[in-house]
Amino acid sequence: MSIAESGEFGLIGRIVSRLDTGSATLLGPGDDAAVVRAADGRVVASTDVLVEGRHFRRDWCGPADVGHRAAAANLADIAAMGATPTALLVALCVPAGLEADWAEGLADGLTAEAALCGAGVVGGDTSGGPTLTVAVTALGDLGGRDPVRRNGAHPGDILALAGRIGYAAAGYTVLSRGFRTPKMLVEAYRRPQVRYAAGPEAARLGATSMIDVSDGLLQDVGHLATASLVGIDVRSDAFEVPDQMRDAAKALGVDPYQWVLAGGDDHPLAATFPPGTRLPDGWREIGTVHDGSGVTVDRKPWSGPLGWDHFR
Amino acid sequence: MSIAESGEFGLIGRIVSRLDTGSATLLGPGDDAAVVRAADGRVVASTDVLVEGRHFRRDWCGPADVGHRAAAANLADIAAMGATPTALLVALCVPAGLEADWAEGLADGLTAEAALCGAGVVGGDTSGGPTLTVAVTALGDLGGRDPVRRNGAHPGDILALAGRIGYAAAGYTVLSRGFRTPKMLVEAYRRPQVRYAAGPEAARLGATSMIDVSDGLLQDVGHLATASLVGIDVRSDAFEVPDQMRDAAKALGVDPYQWVLAGGDDHPLAATFPPGTRLPDGWREIGTVHDGSGVTVDRKPWSGPLGWDHFR
Repeated sequence: MSIAESGEFGLIGRIVSRLDTGSATLLGPGDDAAVVRAADGRVVASTDVLVEGRHFRRDWCGPADVGHRAAAANLADIAAMGATPTALLVALCVPAGLEADWAEGLADGLTAEAALCGAGVVGGDTSGGPTLTVAVTALGDLGGRDPVRRNGAHPGDILALAGRIGYAAAGYTVLSRGFRTPKMLVEAYRRPQVRYAAGPEAARLGATSMIDVSDGLLQDVGHLATASLVGIDVRSDAFEVPDQMRDAAKALGVDPYQWVLAGGDDHPLAATFPPGTRLPDGWREIGTVHDGSGVTVDRKPWSGPLGWDHFR
Repeated sequence: MSIAESGEFGLIGRIVSRLDTGSATLLGPGDDAAVVRAADGRVVASTDVLVEGRHFRRDWCGPADVGHRAAAANLADIAAMGATPTALLVALCVPAGLEADWAEGLADGLTAEAALCGAGVVGGDTSGGPTLTVAVTALGDLGGRDPVRRNGAHPGDILALAGRIGYAAAGYTVLSRGFRTPKMLVEAYRRPQVRYAAGPEAARLGATSMIDVSDGLLQDVGHLATASLVGIDVRSDAFEVPDQMRDAAKALGVDPYQWVLAGGDDHPLAATFPPGTRLPDGWREIGTVHDGSGVTVDRKPWSGPLGWDHFR
């Protein structure tokens, strides 16, 4: 059944029946607005929008994959403030001919990804429209801690990363060349594995700045450098390039460090910590903060693109 | 300058420079997420999406008008829970050829409308995309009160309305027939006048259910009836049809009650109150709640359309 046949309220009913609300949800979908617990008297909020043909392709990703990706992009922003995600709201624009099954699959993916960090899908809106578009807003709870901003890095701090990097970009290249394997890389593009708990963990460890790497490591670390008025050097030998990525890079004629240093979509968290901070498992030191400005790789300017501009 | 020329970060910078953050904003745009005060330990949240060609036309509305309309649609949802809006987040998809001025005008309209209820624009996201789309999320504060839901109306309650109704629908008809006057009606469509403060006021008065009328009075009051398992009768003589609306209706060959009873976009608040509630200025009794189901007009079924389905 197409969405035009089921009508707006039919579609909403089909979607809502598939959603799980999280433990912070006081009032879920079905009223004018949701009500979400904000125990510490503040709420963290972020919005991201995914547009078909630009952020996803239906022939590359199933509807649940798109749901996972849309949720992850937002939930990672919440984690990057040092907060724990509590809720998602979703605005969905769908062409009238789209199968209602697709929207249901999307709802399944959104709900499943949110559940990974205990968050629920609490509300949303649907509209017809010529371009399939998914705009997600995530809310989160700081648990009494200060937010970790982009502007607190100091010379001498270490730069560390939590989560995979380069995998999703490699999967994107694989798909864009018409291949479907290596599966590990393609699946990494379809469903990023974000270490949400690393965000609050970094805040407790005293992280001085943090960002989620969505557009490319060098570009996003560059935002930390700019906001903090410091320079940041990234060490290329800090990254393991797994065999499957190295083999795929060779077969496709790509420098795998282009994926690692400038590829987006994995959403690892990059944070700076005071010198001497003992990083727990899951965090890997990848560079240092120094006086100056900009981002270098092994103390040299990086010659490739830094990341992704959504208008170019 | 087009948005493609200014680039993603150029556009964001131009927009952010025009935003005002409200008094509840602890951290505004520029980081991974915003931080908003949620003093009572809960946050109210709602999302609405506007798509060009479906919810607005650039030849009918300037960019600031679209900003006012997008903000009002969301802020009214927050008010309809009995809450005070605190913040907006905006996800914007724009064709690359759009002038950056347009996005700036949109930001001005969003900010100005939010300021009417003390809220700020605290964050957002922008993307290129073929269809101009504005998805807004609003947050709000219940101030220690229970949310006013849709499901609490009781037989014997009175139905009341705060705010104009029919004006925006009349303006829509005027514009769709190629006219630009009467100005009052066209402006009502471009910039709804929502009585935001009436939402918390209704909660304090003991409203048993509430909704914002965005798709048509009978359809939206029908949601109250369905959720509350009651019938609701609307009295047509409760509505004043102003002269300009009556004249326009006559000239256009339209029954003005179609605008009043089934027209959307004005976003008045409809609420039910226990019998004997003394309604303050600005609230007008328009009907009664009774045992049964569905919505009637003057005790009879309404033969026209009830409202708007965004997929038909």
